[in-house]
Amino acid sequence: MEWSRESEDRLASFLGGERFRVWYLLSGDEARARAMAADICLEQTVEFPGDLVPPGLIKDAIVGRVESFGAAGPGLFRAGISFAVETAQSDIVQLLNVIYGNISIKPDIRVERLELPAGLLAGYSGPRFGREGLRKLLGVPGRPLTCTALKPMGLSPGEIAGQAYRFALGGIDIIKDDHGIQDQVFCPFEERVARCAEAVDRANRETGLRSVYMANVTGRMDRIQASARRAKELGAGALLLCPSLTGFDALRLLAEDRAIDLPVMAHPSFGGVMATSGTSGIAHPTLYGTLMRLCGADATVYPNFGGRFSFTKEECVGIAGATSERLGSLKPIFPAPGGGMTPERTAEMLDVYGKDFILLVGAGLHRNGPDLTANARQLLGMLERM
Amino acid sequence: MEWSRESEDRLASFLGGERFRVWYLLSGDEARARAMAADICLEQTVEFPGDLVPPGLIKDAIVGRVESFGAAGPGLFRAGISFAVETAQSDIVQLLNVIYGNISIKPDIRVERLELPAGLLAGYSGPRFGREGLRKLLGVPGRPLTCTALKPMGLSPGEIAGQAYRFALGGIDIIKDDHGIQDQVFCPFEERVARCAEAVDRANRETGLRSVYMANVTGRMDRIQASARRAKELGAGALLLCPSLTGFDALRLLAEDRAIDLPVMAHPSFGGVMATSGTSGIAHPTLYGTLMRLCGADATVYPNFGGRFSFTKEECVGIAGATSERLGSLKPIFPAPGGGMTPERTAEMLDVYGKDFILLVGAGLHRNGPDLTANARQLLGMLERM
Repeated sequence: MEWSRESEDRLASFLGGERFRVWYLLSGDEARARAMAADICLEQTVEFPGDLVPPGLIKDAIVGRVESFGAAGPGLFRAGISFAVETAQSDIVQLLNVIYGNISIKPDIRVERLELPAGLLAGYSGPRFGREGLRKLLGVPGRPLTCTALKPMGLSPGEIAGQAYRFALGGIDIIKDDHGIQDQVFCPFEERVARCAEAVDRANRETGLRSVYMANVTGRMDRIQASARRAKELGAGALLLCPSLTGFDALRLLAEDRAIDLPVMAHPSFGGVMATSGTSGIAHPTLYGTLMRLCGADATVYPNFGGRFSFTKEECVGIAGATSERLGSLKPIFPAPGGGMTPERTAEMLDVYGKDFILLVGAGLHRNGPDLTANARQLLGMLERM
Repeated sequence: MEWSRESEDRLASFLGGERFRVWYLLSGDEARARAMAADICLEQTVEFPGDLVPPGLIKDAIVGRVESFGAAGPGLFRAGISFAVETAQSDIVQLLNVIYGNISIKPDIRVERLELPAGLLAGYSGPRFGREGLRKLLGVPGRPLTCTALKPMGLSPGEIAGQAYRFALGGIDIIKDDHGIQDQVFCPFEERVARCAEAVDRANRETGLRSVYMANVTGRMDRIQASARRAKELGAGALLLCPSLTGFDALRLLAEDRAIDLPVMAHPSFGGVMATSGTSGIAHPTLYGTLMRLCGADATVYPNFGGRFSFTKEECVGIAGATSERLGSLKPIFPAPGGGMTPERTAEMLDVYGKDFILLVGAGLHRNGPDLTANARQLLGMLERM
């Protein structure tokens, strides 16, 4: 196999030498792990057997490069593999393709961490609001933010809006659609968003607070952006999106759209296996922290430890860490642990997360009886006393 | 907890009684599996504790319903759970959300199979070409179709187009971009697609055959449709998309767009964990067969057994089965097993798949020496003798 001088020269003219690094955890014995690391270098780039790649720039710079390799535990190895930024610079879709495209089909390879240099981060404006922007918008300088979900699926827009009003009266900062409430015939998007936005606005006028209604815009690819713009027109103050259902780039599109200019919360629906698959997938902090933030989420929902899901405390702390660690000049975002949270767990969460998190309590706010405003006030009172 | 009469009446006016069914495989002992089945019914719909859902239509019709439950193997149970079509009728995104949204985060729940009634299938036009349409387009009535990938990443558009020309001269039916070749600076989409389409067209004029160049349109959400239309203008004869990277709805959008009117092949990049995660995720036939077809893929790529990936023969046969089993009036599509395939494995594949599959040989066509046309002719000759 040989390729033309023209092709080689052209490639040389475009490669700047900058590389991003992916840390992979590889399960197996050392020989197998070393073979897997070598295989990743080919599979994620040239998809060509190594012996068919002739000497030259493709072999030297396009094929991934094992920069480091070492033990990471019993039967576990860590490989740091670098790729030329030009292989994945075009968009998040291609970045994910190089990081974990074909190898997602191969067992025992897990993406642990990313190291993204300036040349790659330059393509991402990241979160529009971030922690500081969201606090300012909501007028909540110090304590954890509060969030609840409008539910259950099956209620009419009027009933949902009634809930929104009562939660807003009680002072909940972010009142979001449950992620399963979308554009069903019994609760269509347009009517629901209009009524909920109006309800929260009315409550705000009564309380003097700045609660926001967060509309779920997860849906058809060709409608997400229009839905978000429409939600804004109708008075929604924030947006909810499930990137694993819509594709991660939808998040980027919403965050970058100046006509929308609303905070976006990422919800983990459909993508859970990516984190929970043990020796495969993408580590929790990278998936829910780094990637959501890179795509422009201002807050990232994930199931808190000790709730009705399976994440460990360590995994949750890792996610929270990734929401604020240095990532170029991208703003830190809010971790939003939820999933069966109750007001009673607030103290423990403050202890683990500090004050920079979104306390997401859904059904837990219905547990103490039908007066949602009172239940919300009780939660806020508890938070403010802490 | 109580909800208004108005809300209940409104819901009643919209529910037609039709339900779709999802078969879940649940790992654990029977008590745990039964509890998981009950939990799925709530988690995927109301996201509300069962004891907080009052009697009424939400409890009766919106909450999922365990229709059947039984043993499926040692420590494995199968639950058939039905959901009202109205919970998920709006689009594929919401359908996936109800089928496997939040429970993707819970271990030991695997989607085995879907049973989609007319009221739900009515929202999907499915594959535009299907097996018959693709055979007609390519002028290949009987034998398996052939497909190869232009690679490796790093080559210039001119070099890639040269490959395309030589493969087309050799009679390969579908000459596709490698899924990692996207819109890199060293091989930009516009220039590559124009040159490859021209090259294949030129070869067709020489051979009298009807090879097509398949352009990879995987990329930013706001560019996929435009890229596909542009590819068509430039002369591409088919499209490649990675739905797990772009969101499944991108596939539907391409398939439904009359201005595009090109066959679409779905590639499994990034979504592998969904199938390979064992006791979680979505079973191979449903993920690569049913869902890709539902969204409108005319062909679905997956790693063949015995190649460089890990799928078993049974899993592959299951996928092929799902590409043609009855799915409303949706056309059967082509299974496209690939991933380290060589011409030598053709006989075995014919034996397993019959003649209705796409023989996807990538690097295997480079193995026998640099004359790609000769290598392609050898493959076609072998196929035609069988």
